[in-house]
Amino acid sequence: MIRVGICGYGNLGKGVEAAVHNSPDMELVAVFTRRLPASVTLKTKSARVLPFDSIAEYKNAIDVIINCGGSASDLPLTTPLIAGSFNVVDSFDTHARIPEHFANVDAKAKQSGKIAVISVGWDPGLFSLNRLYMNAVLPAGKDYTFWGRGISQGHSDAIRRIDGVIDARQYTVPVENAVRSVRNGGQPELSVRETHTRECYVAAEDGADKERIENEIRTMPYYFADYDTTVTFISLDELRKDHGGIPHGGRVIRTGRTGFDLDKKHTIEYSLQSESNPEFTGSVLTAFARAAYRLEKNGDKGCKTAFDIAPALLTAQDGGYIRAHLL
Amino acid sequence: MIRVGICGYGNLGKGVEAAVHNSPDMELVAVFTRRLPASVTLKTKSARVLPFDSIAEYKNAIDVIINCGGSASDLPLTTPLIAGSFNVVDSFDTHARIPEHFANVDAKAKQSGKIAVISVGWDPGLFSLNRLYMNAVLPAGKDYTFWGRGISQGHSDAIRRIDGVIDARQYTVPVENAVRSVRNGGQPELSVRETHTRECYVAAEDGADKERIENEIRTMPYYFADYDTTVTFISLDELRKDHGGIPHGGRVIRTGRTGFDLDKKHTIEYSLQSESNPEFTGSVLTAFARAAYRLEKNGDKGCKTAFDIAPALLTAQDGGYIRAHLL
Repeated sequence: MIRVGICGYGNLGKGVEAAVHNSPDMELVAVFTRRLPASVTLKTKSARVLPFDSIAEYKNAIDVIINCGGSASDLPLTTPLIAGSFNVVDSFDTHARIPEHFANVDAKAKQSGKIAVISVGWDPGLFSLNRLYMNAVLPAGKDYTFWGRGISQGHSDAIRRIDGVIDARQYTVPVENAVRSVRNGGQPELSVRETHTRECYVAAEDGADKERIENEIRTMPYYFADYDTTVTFISLDELRKDHGGIPHGGRVIRTGRTGFDLDKKHTIEYSLQSESNPEFTGSVLTAFARAAYRLEKNGDKGCKTAFDIAPALLTAQDGGYIRAHLL
Repeated sequence: MIRVGICGYGNLGKGVEAAVHNSPDMELVAVFTRRLPASVTLKTKSARVLPFDSIAEYKNAIDVIINCGGSASDLPLTTPLIAGSFNVVDSFDTHARIPEHFANVDAKAKQSGKIAVISVGWDPGLFSLNRLYMNAVLPAGKDYTFWGRGISQGHSDAIRRIDGVIDARQYTVPVENAVRSVRNGGQPELSVRETHTRECYVAAEDGADKERIENEIRTMPYYFADYDTTVTFISLDELRKDHGGIPHGGRVIRTGRTGFDLDKKHTIEYSLQSESNPEFTGSVLTAFARAAYRLEKNGDKGCKTAFDIAPALLTAQDGGYIRAHLL
């Protein structure tokens, strides 16, 4: 059994807990938290809740830590720290800062002789893998990523910070026409507005100025101003009932050409639709935790991304089985 | 530059030649053939045409051989033979015999200290990779593979062997209702007839008994009897004009559930549409040839499948670049 620890017990940590529960070769040993341990109740009765600051003491009791903190301020600090003592996996998703995070984590993991796998989830993660395979097979081509239909946590939070808003959910929605034109192989140049729209559901305080709120949303730079944005006011009850889930999804499409004259067209498309973004991301992290454990057992060390990991390392099934049944 | 040799110069060999031409880090050194070398003219003027029997003499002039023979009788013999002297890649696609082929090739490649990569193309190959990733991430689920719309060479050949048939093309077509029901997550049990139909275009000899030919096709065991099959007679000119290409495609769909109560649904779908099956398969083989070369340089040896190869090894771009641009 691979002994797993989880850092952080928000939505993502709970998603990982479920994925470990559903993995026959893994057991959850402990969840580390910055909250008061006594205030946290796990679904896994056999696992302990421990203070994050004590994590290094459990070096010999845990094979791999799945770090479920946020990318903005938590993971850049905690993943290198954990890599000093453990194999560790995270879902760091600030694309522009991945090279820096990779370098920091790699230095620590090489020192400790451990494996750290960063930036695994669906994007970065499974979408990245598919972009890489598509680029390797169709080097003369162009790829497009569409996100949604699904909840964007960051955009929902941005609406909640507006005066007079009680709660809100924002759906990112791909523009069907854009998806179609890409699939047809035209390799269009698409503006931000042409690729995604934003649907906002907002519960406002009684007597709040809805016109002002709607205007503040629509004109918010970076988040909404560049998009076709719709704002719908609903009651808090409706918001919780009809928009209480955390679905997400998206697709990567690459069109390319082959032949001496580049005259033959090909389209590869990878798509995902998920009813629970944190449970799906948690399942991806858990599969890569298995790979991290095996890579260290094989004598490897340092920071890896999904690109560096042979797919066979992700599954509990052995080589003979997967060659006979999945190849 | 990676020095490449090709064995066999049919449609697939020509597809590989084009893919090598479009790879900045590779050069084609020679094509080995069982035909009279003087009868074969390459598009790559700098490469030589050599008799297959002389291949071992070129051991030091070539880094990797891409073996473009057929799966039925050629690859089971030639891939182990070539693996005795070279890194080698093939597209062996008889799913049921992969374990046996793997064992034969592995023994030879371990002896010679070379790398052999077998069964890479789109299925087995990219479809297999996606089945593996999907299974690792959603262990509680079920996957489905649909082929087409595209030409099946084997089924077209079977029609051509019927008395009175001059030429024929058979398209394998997925049943849209089946695809939809799988996408919706119902995990249906589907019969062969419910998943694919078969469209046949046949050019018959003047005065041939078309009713008999149609009946022989529709009732042919294994190939057509279990499917809804349509037969359309057209002229040889029409066949060549309207059905002269070798398009293919297909999709793998997995639906699965996560959570302690397995109550959250997820769907992952991978699809391909290609105007040229041999050029696409040739491009996949060429990317894996790059990986074979690198694996041997890293000191590895033996037989591998797509499952055993870290994706980063497939692309000409380096780790820093792909982390910054594709992750």
